[in-house]
This record gives sequence, C-alpha cells and structure tokens, in this order.
Amino acid sequence: MNTPKELEDFIQNGYKTYIPHVCIDCAIFGYHDHRLKILLRQIEGLHGLCLPGGYIKRVETLDDAAKRIVEEITSITGLYLQQYKTFGDPDRIKWNELDLEELSKQAPFKKIKSSWLRDQTISIGYYAITDFSSAIPQPGILSESCEWYDIDKIPSLLFDHDQMVNEALQTLRSQLYYHPIVEKLLPKKFTLTEIHAVYETILGKRLDLRNFPKKLVFMGLINRLPEKRNIGPHRAPYLYTFNKKKYSRALELGVTLS
Amino acid sequence: MNTPKELEDFIQNGYKTYIPHVCIDCAIFGYHDHRLKILLRQIEGLHGLCLPGGYIKRVETLDDAAKRIVEEITSITGLYLQQYKTFGDPDRIKWNELDLEELSKQAPFKKIKSSWLRDQTISIGYYAITDFSSAIPQPGILSESCEWYDIDKIPSLLFDHDQMVNEALQTLRSQLYYHPIVEKLLPKKFTLTEIHAVYETILGKRLDLRNFPKKLVFMGLINRLPEKRNIGPHRAPYLYTFNKKKYSRALELGVTLS
Repeated sequence: MNTPKELEDFIQNGYKTYIPHVCIDCAIFGYHDHRLKILLRQIEGLHGLCLPGGYIKRVETLDDAAKRIVEEITSITGLYLQQYKTFGDPDRIKWNELDLEELSKQAPFKKIKSSWLRDQTISIGYYAITDFSSAIPQPGILSESCEWYDIDKIPSLLFDHDQMVNEALQTLRSQLYYHPIVEKLLPKKFTLTEIHAVYETILGKRLDLRNFPKKLVFMGLINRLPEKRNIGPHRAPYLYTFNKKKYSRALELGVTLS
Repeated sequence: MNTPKELEDFIQNGYKTYIPHVCIDCAIFGYHDHRLKILLRQIEGLHGLCLPGGYIKRVETLDDAAKRIVEEITSITGLYLQQYKTFGDPDRIKWNELDLEELSKQAPFKKIKSSWLRDQTISIGYYAITDFSSAIPQPGILSESCEWYDIDKIPSLLFDHDQMVNEALQTLRSQLYYHPIVEKLLPKKFTLTEIHAVYETILGKRLDLRNFPKKLVFMGLINRLPEKRNIGPHRAPYLYTFNKKKYSRALELGVTLS
C-alpha cells in the first residue's frame, strides 16, 4: 500500500478485502527506567497524531488483525496485545478536522470522500506494554512518522484517541495485580527496587518503597529467590521472580480472595 | 418491526438506519436464592437459541444501543450493562446452521440471502446481572421466545454464543471483587449468609462460610452496621452494607493494593 496506485486501489476497493465500518486502534505503552511512553503515528495526508490502527481483513481473527496492523505500521513484533474496549460514539471521527477536501486534491486520494473509508466506523481498542529502549518503531504503511512520546507530554490526538489512550491506561492500571503484564518490563530475576519503579511509574503515583513490595510478596505474586545481586560494597539486595501460577489463577478466578 | 412489511423493509433498507457489519449481543445473568440463570431468546424464523442482540443505530452510542436492544427484545429495563469483549472470528456465524434457504421461502425473508444481514458481522458483547425473580422477560421484536435458563442446563447456542456466554461469565467472576456488580442482587442491608450465597453461586464453587465473608470485611468492601436482623429465636445476625467508596476506588486504581 505504498505506491500511489496501491493507495488508490485501497481507497476504491479495500472493502472487498477488509470489513467496512470497523477498525482496530492500538495503544502501545513503553516503559523503561521510571519513564512511561506511548507510540503515536502521523497518517499520510492527515494533520495531527493518532494511535496506530487499521482495518480487519475478512479472513482474520481480531487478535491476528491487531498483531498484523501493529507490525505493518510500527515494525514492532512480539507484543502481548490485549483487547480492552470498543469505541462507537457517532461523533468519534471529527471529519471536519481531517480536511478531506484538501486531501482529495492529491491524486491517490481523489475518491476518498465517496469511498467506504468515509462512512461511520467503530473502533476496537487493543493495548500492550513493552520496553521502549528495545522496541524501536519504523514508520510503515500510510505513516509519515511513528514515535514514542512521553505519556505526560502527548498533544491532543485525532478522532477519539485521547479517550482511547485514557481508557487503555486505566485498564492497564486496573490489571496490574492480576495480569502478568509487567513481566516483560523486568529481567527474569529482579530486585524490589526495580519492580517498585515499574508499578509507581505505570500507576503514576508514589508507592511506599518498603511496604509496597512486601504486599506483592504477601499476595504471592512474586517470590523471593535464595540469591542476591551484588551492586556495590555492602549492597546486595535479594532477587525476586514472578509467580506465574498465582497470576494465572488470579486471572481466572478473580484477584486474590478465591 | 413486527408486521411482515416492517420486517421486509428492515431486511432491504435497515443498513440506512443501522451500521452494517457490527452488532451487539447481551449476556444477561439472573441470580436469586442460590440459583444462577441466563436470558436466552429464539429469533423468529431461526431454529435454536441465542443471546438477545441487535444492530446499532447510526445515531446511537454503543451503550445506548445495548440498552435499547435489551429493552426491545426482553422488556427488561434498568440493567447495568457493561461491555466486556468484541467477537470477530471470520467463522463466528455458522450460516449453514441458519438454513436461510428455507427461511427465504417465507415472504418477508425473501431477500435475506442477498441482504446486508448476510454479510460478515462482528459482535460487541455486553453483560449484566439482575434478580431473575423480579425481572420477567416479555418476548419483543423478532423473538418467538425469551426466557431464563439455568446456567448449567443451557443447550448449545447459535453463532459463537456459547463462547460469548463463557467469556461473559469469566468476566463477571473476575470483576466480583472490584465492581459493585452484586449490589442489586441483595437488599441494601444484608447478612453475611446472603452475600456468601451470591458469591458462591456466581463463582460456581464452595467458599468457606466463616472465612470468606471475613475477607470481604477485611478488604473493606462491606461494612458491618450496628443493627441485627431478627430471623428467629436466638438468631439475629448482624447486617452489612456495601462500601461504595472502596469499590469505586478499587475500580479506578486496581483492586486493593494501591
């Protein structure tokens, strides 16, 4: 879909390959060393930033479509993408903001105003979190740019993507205690200081440095190993590991009470 | 949509009012006195049972559509409907099971095979729970029947609705500790025996009668009142009430650790 001809064909005939009226948008968060970011793209021909997103092929499952869309747009692979909510307010796409009049003056976009892309569209939200220091985005199809932005410095986004980001972040936060979401953000064996930083950064608030990790141990979500990490003279904190069995039980049965 | 003419018009022109390719299906659970049920309907002209569902009007939000669909089909109002997952496997609708050949012999369904209804459709799942003893369904539009079925006696359902029910039940269970879902299933002031029965029935497993309610108190999700209920000689258990503040905090910040 990179040549003008392919783009023109997508605008005119895409509905034969993709399901119209439904798309997928992905809030991909990135964590590293006390910082939380999100991946945003600029779509070719449109002004403003939005989440990576696209349409679902008629032969795909939703999860497969989300995975393909992220890979095509960002080149990032291996994410644990999770569906979190579907967005369908009638006014979620602000057509006047998009300036299709101007866009349709460019050859491949000539027929965009009367195309299947111009109709009402419901978006299925997916989210994921990864280590942004090792996940380097490369702008793919239909993208002029694709970059990590600090979570507290993102500009106002296109469509209803401000709301999509907020609700994805809220879901991420609420699932921190029963989804092994943060597993990939830490080494296999980690210190309490490291896991404390992850939770504090994602939750966006201070957590007691002594008591908080103790609670994770108490809940059985992490286990202390009989080894320490030597990080300096007189400094050798114990190492911990995730208790995957406990997490998957919490996931299935509802938190820790059952 | 009850007269054959209205039905014919819906089949031929419904896409002008409703968004094609997307529908909403609702898993409505019912609890009363140790029993868990689910609401199932039979669609006019089709063999087999399925969840109440329908299409989204182009002017509606998804939540408003879910509410209207449930009211139109079941006549039950005032449910707290929550979106839980969107289903879009390419083979989720088993067209051969539906026997459209036979159906299209009936006058109003004549054009169904070439209509917008025959195309690939993604379904947004909603769920709710209510007290089935006071929520009496009346079959509404397009429904030959609409009734409560015991959760452990439901037959194999049409489309992918077996999966939709299973995932709705799993969501309901996993949210029991941070959503005040069960609030409407109990009187405002309830005994520990009563709340124990609700949790045990919904989770589908035995919970310790002495320890389980203590944990709810310990988590701060319910509070003991300074009153008792007289239910017999020497039997006057304390009454409890939900701590709504704690629930909404858990909902916002992630369970009870924060």
